Amino acid sequence: MITQRPLETFLDELASGAPTPGGGSAAAVIGAMGAALISMVCNVTLGKKGHEAVEAEMRSVRDASERLRAQLTSMVADDIAAFDGLMAAYRLPKANDEDKLRRADAIQSTLRAATETPLACARACAQVVALSRRAGEKGYAGVVSDAGVGVLAANAALRSAALNVYINAPSLKDRDYAAAALSEIEKLLADGARESEAVFELVRSRLG
Amino acid sequence: MITQRPLETFLDELASGAPTPGGGSAAAVIGAMGAALISMVCNVTLGKKGHEAVEAEMRSVRDASERLRAQLTSMVADDIAAFDGLMAAYRLPKANDEDKLRRADAIQSTLRAATETPLACARACAQVVALSRRAGEKGYAGVVSDAGVGVLAANAALRSAALNVYINAPSLKDRDYAAAALSEIEKLLADGARESEAVFELVRSRLG
Repeated sequence: MITQRPLETFLDELASGAPTPGGGSAAAVIGAMGAALISMVCNVTLGKKGHEAVEAEMRSVRDASERLRAQLTSMVADDIAAFDGLMAAYRLPKANDEDKLRRADAIQSTLRAATETPLACARACAQVVALSRRAGEKGYAGVVSDAGVGVLAANAALRSAALNVYINAPSLKDRDYAAAALSEIEKLLADGARESEAVFELVRSRLG
Repeated sequence: MITQRPLETFLDELASGAPTPGGGSAAAVIGAMGAALISMVCNVTLGKKGHEAVEAEMRSVRDASERLRAQLTSMVADDIAAFDGLMAAYRLPKANDEDKLRRADAIQSTLRAATETPLACARACAQVVALSRRAGEKGYAGVVSDAGVGVLAANAALRSAALNVYINAPSLKDRDYAAAALSEIEKLLADGARESEAVFELVRSRLG
């Protein structure tokens, strides 16, 4: 598993000319870092004097952000599998009509996975952005900047995942699915931009 | 070294209630990921047919992004050291006037390091943002989205580092230094916002 390798090895592999890991995997890791920071804010706040009233809420935010962190971490491997699947489909033989038909089908089904995977990443990142407001508003003041970094990471990851939807959706022959995916990503991007800026400003104002 | 631990361990430590690693370390890692993706675009472009004319430029961009990646990777430990130094200063005894004076001096010098460290991170991220335009413009079309993820990561990391400057600069007694640090960070933020959005749009337009 790539996420079990040392962080520096992951960075070396990201920088190399090998096709994976690339931007899709990076998006999942950055989203997972955003989720981890929201969890951190909750974990530090839990048990802090004067924060008893928000304890239940911090627990619920943390449980949600930990679920999202696990999902986003597993999406690093999903992204690589989707990319590898697509490349394998493109490499299928095309010597005769039967080959060509099989290859075209394989490309379409792997393209769909290569659209669905970053879309799922974008959805999870949007949920991290949504959670960050509660962490930024009610978390212990000493770690509020970590909620700010969390929301910036989650929204950058959402936008990064969107780029991978843009790459793959246009080649899909199922135009209804492609249109629905593109329309969903536009909504996620618009909501994410608005909410992440609002949370960033909230965090800045709490920094004094 | 924290960056030699598995990526999942780093995420676990980020999510935990321990004070480090926190947002400052996350900013350095995200910045290093941005630099790694710019290097990837250059590495894939180098040797690609039809890209001979940009070979020298891709080499020069990659050399610069690799230097920045090494710097940003080492800033993960710098951030932890700066935070630990500041916490140790706050824990110094304050039983008598001599103690109090020594403690105040230690707080000021560690606060300065805790301002300078994220400022250096923001500067390095700004340089990654600047490099991303050449990778996004001239890199091989098949990896242009990776330049887009790179610039989003670098600018999110720049903004994240800025939050740590905002936390520490106001407590500095050297108001000239604090004002210079805050003025520099504002300029880096403004330039980073403008340039990263321009590169993101450039990448989107090349995705078709």
